[in-house]
Amino acid sequence: MVQEFDVLVLGGGYAGLLAALRLGKRLAGKPFRVGLVDRNPYHTLVTELHRVAAGTASPTAVRIPFAKILKDKPVSFVRAEVHALDLRERRVDTSAGALHYKILLVALGGEAETYGIPGVAEHALSATALAPARLFRYRLEHNLARYAYTQDDAFRTVVIGGAGFTGVELAGELAFRAPDFREAFDLPDTEGGLRIFVAEATDRALPPFPEELGRYAARRLAERGVRFLFGSPFREVREEGVLLGDGTFLPARTVAWCGGVRAPEVLRRAGFPIQNGRIPVGNDLRVPGFEDVFAVGDVAFFVDEDLGPLPPTAQTAIQMGPQAAENAAALLTGGSVQPLRAKNRGAVATLGPQDAVGCLYGRYRIYGRLAFWTKRAIEMRYLAILRREAGWYTP
Amino acid sequence: MVQEFDVLVLGGGYAGLLAALRLGKRLAGKPFRVGLVDRNPYHTLVTELHRVAAGTASPTAVRIPFAKILKDKPVSFVRAEVHALDLRERRVDTSAGALHYKILLVALGGEAETYGIPGVAEHALSATALAPARLFRYRLEHNLARYAYTQDDAFRTVVIGGAGFTGVELAGELAFRAPDFREAFDLPDTEGGLRIFVAEATDRALPPFPEELGRYAARRLAERGVRFLFGSPFREVREEGVLLGDGTFLPARTVAWCGGVRAPEVLRRAGFPIQNGRIPVGNDLRVPGFEDVFAVGDVAFFVDEDLGPLPPTAQTAIQMGPQAAENAAALLTGGSVQPLRAKNRGAVATLGPQDAVGCLYGRYRIYGRLAFWTKRAIEMRYLAILRREAGWYTP
Repeated sequence: MVQEFDVLVLGGGYAGLLAALRLGKRLAGKPFRVGLVDRNPYHTLVTELHRVAAGTASPTAVRIPFAKILKDKPVSFVRAEVHALDLRERRVDTSAGALHYKILLVALGGEAETYGIPGVAEHALSATALAPARLFRYRLEHNLARYAYTQDDAFRTVVIGGAGFTGVELAGELAFRAPDFREAFDLPDTEGGLRIFVAEATDRALPPFPEELGRYAARRLAERGVRFLFGSPFREVREEGVLLGDGTFLPARTVAWCGGVRAPEVLRRAGFPIQNGRIPVGNDLRVPGFEDVFAVGDVAFFVDEDLGPLPPTAQTAIQMGPQAAENAAALLTGGSVQPLRAKNRGAVATLGPQDAVGCLYGRYRIYGRLAFWTKRAIEMRYLAILRREAGWYTP
Repeated sequence: MVQEFDVLVLGGGYAGLLAALRLGKRLAGKPFRVGLVDRNPYHTLVTELHRVAAGTASPTAVRIPFAKILKDKPVSFVRAEVHALDLRERRVDTSAGALHYKILLVALGGEAETYGIPGVAEHALSATALAPARLFRYRLEHNLARYAYTQDDAFRTVVIGGAGFTGVELAGELAFRAPDFREAFDLPDTEGGLRIFVAEATDRALPPFPEELGRYAARRLAERGVRFLFGSPFREVREEGVLLGDGTFLPARTVAWCGGVRAPEVLRRAGFPIQNGRIPVGNDLRVPGFEDVFAVGDVAFFVDEDLGPLPPTAQTAIQMGPQAAENAAALLTGGSVQPLRAKNRGAVATLGPQDAVGCLYGRYRIYGRLAFWTKRAIEMRYLAILRREAGWYTP
């Protein structure tokens, strides 16, 4: 089956979904067809996935069905896996057949950047999507249940690779759940029951933040039993544990890889240019050399004149998505494309459900409960934007 | 370290715990030492284990710490694994050292009776104790999380071996949770998402019950998607599934074995007589040939004059434990032992959290919600007995 679209959006994450909704709005009543492709029937709140991985949020609590969001919208949803792109033929091959487009918005999100470290792809899980975050949670709980049979510490040991945002947030949630794990799984009282290690190649936590914030995060988590191993890159991951850069072998049955994301393999194979693991885009979010292709969200590498390269965060995604949609609509309707004017509102990393650390507008540093509630406010703000774009607001 | 006891109770299940409490009461103030040995620091509500296995009860909800029950009681609790018994030397070798006794009460509960079927011990789990019931739950959830990666139906298939009490109750709880599983793990809508098979060697469910009750249970569970395979004994269990008697291979990653219990291996090695997989006892609950050894609960094979062989149930255990304690106290204090006068109050099997089927006093048949609440009342009754024996009642 072949389907034709004027604008086709690949990926219904933060950038892709907001782009599709904006396109639906701009092109409503006009003879243009907008499509949104996603492998899942639901939009995932990716910033909550570390909580799914730790088990402090259920898999069903972090998703919203596309059917609900796109109800009555002039956007066709196609549930499909993207298998290949032919950029010359303007065709996307999917598990639901071939899709043709005039304009393409690529918003497929990131996959784990493994830097070619052996065993990471096979034995470590990343909270880049719902399925691996969920699998991490149940693998951990299964291993803790197996501990009673083996008394082997590897079954109650978690190693997190990377002390960036995701790694720190996951460690914080796991440390919070550790007392419950100890009781439910009869773990020993020593060492907090659950053993949590964070192995980081550099000498600090939360690299994009000012140094004192990383120190605060590491100290607070250490107080809750998390052990940070700085200057300790992963050399290899095996079923039984992690080999670190200095040759130390850390026995552990549950390993998370939080070393960053890159554009998915299917895009590399399609012949997109790649820079720093991502697809470089111009200030109008188009891919150089492709007049009819936009890239947004975690797959896109955008360098702002003032802010420098934008980090692959939800905040970046929700600025890119609508702007790319405006530009795609302009191309179809004879308008002119506009550059993205990015804002850096800052970022907050949670350290479990009552503590956090953050840096706002590049200047203000916040800690503890204030930071935690700021993080919650940021998440609420995204949901408010989503409701506004989806037209759920009733006056 | 050697410890000496006048009466030593092995196992703190229903029979052993009630025996220890009764001994503490009878011998209070007298120069006798009573010991209770268990591998866990808590008493487990074994009749609830099928709910732990299905995930409808948490592992921590079905246990009570011995420290709480035995507080202020003249009973010494020894947390230890029983390694070996020397019945001639009156010595029990445990992970906490050697324990000597004058009188022994064996109440170690049952282990799975596998009838020598290959692979059952390695690849199937039984809800005979907290650890395997808990492991079953987390193995199942882990396999369901893996389904998203493989789309292999074996990962969403559970096979239960045996349609006796435990098998039917487990199937009922799993069928109840199936809709939640389907949503949380993105299982397909077809076949209820979770595939539940019950393979039974005979041609009916709930063999000890009147036939119409077994038919009712099978019909109600079939309505909720459970597939019964009658005349289908397990021939072999492998990591990938179950080979049935007729040569059919049923691919399944999660297998429960509910084929009955027998006396643990450590007792067989100790030279106890074995009959029908259990230790035969006289009507005073002593083991023939051993004047100073009582056996109670699931390990004991007791034939009542009127009722015939007593089934290995909680109801049997809570009648045996206190009677054996009375007799043991009588031996120490110069009294005379009395025979157990067993009563058959009947039994109820739950079919999920709102349905059940039961037979009371050998005559009355009950179904549905009435049966379910009768089951709850039976469980409450045990807790009331426990509180009374432990002296928790305040007037």
